[in-house]
Amino acid sequence: MDYPDLLLRLPRWLGSFPAGPGRVYRSSAERMRLVIELARLNLLHGSGGPFGAAIFAMDSAELLAPGVNMVIPSNCSIAHAEIVALMLAQRRAGSFDLGGEGSPPCELVTSCEPCAMCLGAIPWSGVRRLVCGARGEDAERLGFDEGVKHPGWREAFALRGIEVVEDVCRDEAVEILAAYSGVIYNARRGGAGPVP
Amino acid sequence: MDYPDLLLRLPRWLGSFPAGPGRVYRSSAERMRLVIELARLNLLHGSGGPFGAAIFAMDSAELLAPGVNMVIPSNCSIAHAEIVALMLAQRRAGSFDLGGEGSPPCELVTSCEPCAMCLGAIPWSGVRRLVCGARGEDAERLGFDEGVKHPGWREAFALRGIEVVEDVCRDEAVEILAAYSGVIYNARRGGAGPVP
Repeated sequence: MDYPDLLLRLPRWLGSFPAGPGRVYRSSAERMRLVIELARLNLLHGSGGPFGAAIFAMDSAELLAPGVNMVIPSNCSIAHAEIVALMLAQRRAGSFDLGGEGSPPCELVTSCEPCAMCLGAIPWSGVRRLVCGARGEDAERLGFDEGVKHPGWREAFALRGIEVVEDVCRDEAVEILAAYSGVIYNARRGGAGPVP
Repeated sequence: MDYPDLLLRLPRWLGSFPAGPGRVYRSSAERMRLVIELARLNLLHGSGGPFGAAIFAMDSAELLAPGVNMVIPSNCSIAHAEIVALMLAQRRAGSFDLGGEGSPPCELVTSCEPCAMCLGAIPWSGVRRLVCGARGEDAERLGFDEGVKHPGWREAFALRGIEVVEDVCRDEAVEILAAYSGVIYNARRGGAGPVP
């Protein structure tokens, strides 16, 4: 048998936020406001959950790749905003390593602290800095699930040469999470197991 | 601008391991030997790293989706064997939740204990059981990097209703890891940061 290709089709509206030379977002607040706007538009268009992310070149502040949560429309629990942005940046770079030679150092900016899966993806991606808006505890307070994270992940990232910056436009980032009233997809709640 | 679709094209040879009704692997050893064989063939065909995984229906023991590591050929650091198997199973099921109503309970069988990213992906996927061959410490002893895992992840999975079974055909699973002599892609080693 032939297995189908695994395809994630980005929402068309994302094209209104082009990447490439000249598409620069100078301050970390500007970069955070972009990903919060992506989260807002993702809700507005019904194209996924209230999470936005993007990859930027750290030297030029150029947008390399935006991403939004696409779990429900793409029927894929992997398609968190951070994963989508990382995959798109790697596809555009033609490399599985955004920290490799010849690549500008990259940062991942995300409207909400990454869940356990997305945190785990960061060291493999090659990004050198993680910038977060809302905290994981903000998301959990609103009913989202962050998964099983190592309590010392910040220190472990530092040892791996990955800088972590938190609380950038945190209030604005929390607002967009709080605006969500759709399904909080959380596989274990649909499953047979107990909820802790 | 239009962003490209994110496409992971499974290797053609994977079609020799068809999924579907009647494709049953009765014992956990049989299921583990299948994923070890996937890892071995992935090396032989040069289609990725020495890791195989698959999703099975727990009631019928039917193969629902195989997966192999495709990081290097697909230029995608997300394309670990477990992620590929989960994405394919969800695509075949037409659902982001393999633990949802109407879905048979599913297990993820993997030739090696999942890295931090793949562990993080498991609760979101809906699988109810994780079955591992080699231990994370086996992989690390051979130079692979497992990432930043919560030391209590097994207990946390149990609380979430996800059973963990370890050491199935462990020696055979370690053998295939040890046979690998290619690139150990590990983005941080290519980056500017210190290696801990």
